[in-house]
Amino acid sequence: MHHIDVSIEQDVYDANNRIAHATFEHLREHGVRAFDLLGAIGSGKTSLVERLVPMLKERGLRAGAIAGDVYGEDDFQRILATGAPAVNANTGKECHLDAHLVQHAVEKLPLDEIDILFIENVGNMVCPTDFQLGAEKRIVVVSTTEGDDVANKHPMIFRASTIAVINKTDLADAVGCNVDRVEQDIYRYNPSMPVFKTNLRTESDLNNLLDEILR
Amino acid sequence: MHHIDVSIEQDVYDANNRIAHATFEHLREHGVRAFDLLGAIGSGKTSLVERLVPMLKERGLRAGAIAGDVYGEDDFQRILATGAPAVNANTGKECHLDAHLVQHAVEKLPLDEIDILFIENVGNMVCPTDFQLGAEKRIVVVSTTEGDDVANKHPMIFRASTIAVINKTDLADAVGCNVDRVEQDIYRYNPSMPVFKTNLRTESDLNNLLDEILR
Repeated sequence: MHHIDVSIEQDVYDANNRIAHATFEHLREHGVRAFDLLGAIGSGKTSLVERLVPMLKERGLRAGAIAGDVYGEDDFQRILATGAPAVNANTGKECHLDAHLVQHAVEKLPLDEIDILFIENVGNMVCPTDFQLGAEKRIVVVSTTEGDDVANKHPMIFRASTIAVINKTDLADAVGCNVDRVEQDIYRYNPSMPVFKTNLRTESDLNNLLDEILR
Repeated sequence: MHHIDVSIEQDVYDANNRIAHATFEHLREHGVRAFDLLGAIGSGKTSLVERLVPMLKERGLRAGAIAGDVYGEDDFQRILATGAPAVNANTGKECHLDAHLVQHAVEKLPLDEIDILFIENVGNMVCPTDFQLGAEKRIVVVSTTEGDDVANKHPMIFRASTIAVINKTDLADAVGCNVDRVEQDIYRYNPSMPVFKTNLRTESDLNNLLDEILR
């Protein structure tokens, strides 16, 4: 029966990716560039969006967001408070966004008022990896509080993403995290990956990160 | 014993990727951006390099190349004829370049006279996929003569690459290749992948491809 299971799994990914490609095209037609933010709960994805929205505004770019969570409006309300148009996408019980959910979220956004769309995935370092959403790049965010073995434990998400962020570097000493080890582990899985060390208290490296996102 | 085999395989990739990252950093220090060209024998990788070298020159950029092959100097001599500095990298019997071989090839190049380095992999759509070389982007080239099921058969190389080229579109009708099917199969594996349809007789889309490579 193993062969049949694998086929069904592949069909699920294929169907997801067809929708993801349609979303990618739809966004491009409206001049919107989308970026998928992946990472564990507490890695700082929402805080990053909160900081990047005004930085984009300074560069003359209008941000929008889709806030993905299993349940609730916590992240959604924080993003709304930045003034960016946002849609809340609750998965109900699923541990990741999928292309179909994102397609419907996109329908609710005023695309002609958005240049850059952040899609904040459900906090999870495993399951979102295989579900493309139609984003131009995928940004994986880890935090020093997750331990310096965090990258080593998650090869697939680093192989399947475009940009890596090691966040909360200001807490590295307090939590005993060797940031260099995290960085070296990332390069072991993705040798040419751009890696940014951020610290949302001091804006260290945030401008460089935004340059790379927009490149 | 299965567990041990998997560990050894992982060690090989890890060791390869550490060298690939060192190469990536070394190239960056010299202001060189590298691009890995992947694809089957006859897909047109060398012809693409021959065309892109003078186009880069028109844009004020100096190209260099590493020509990867199991044996012989055929591709190497064609690239040398463009005037670009090049190194021949024969694998001897291996079906793909690895980071160690590329590291030594890079040592032989005049890096301070190169802005853009093409690394032409061994013609093979499977084995090179898992061996990163330190390139900023990976460009996978397929030809209409490979049949319109070519992308469908090779999910991994499209997932692990950055840009796709469907080459020899001028032969599509003659060989009965449905180019749209190839393109849709690529999106099924990598929904946001930039895909270029090229035809080295007429330069169709070559400038757009070069824009995307340099982005």
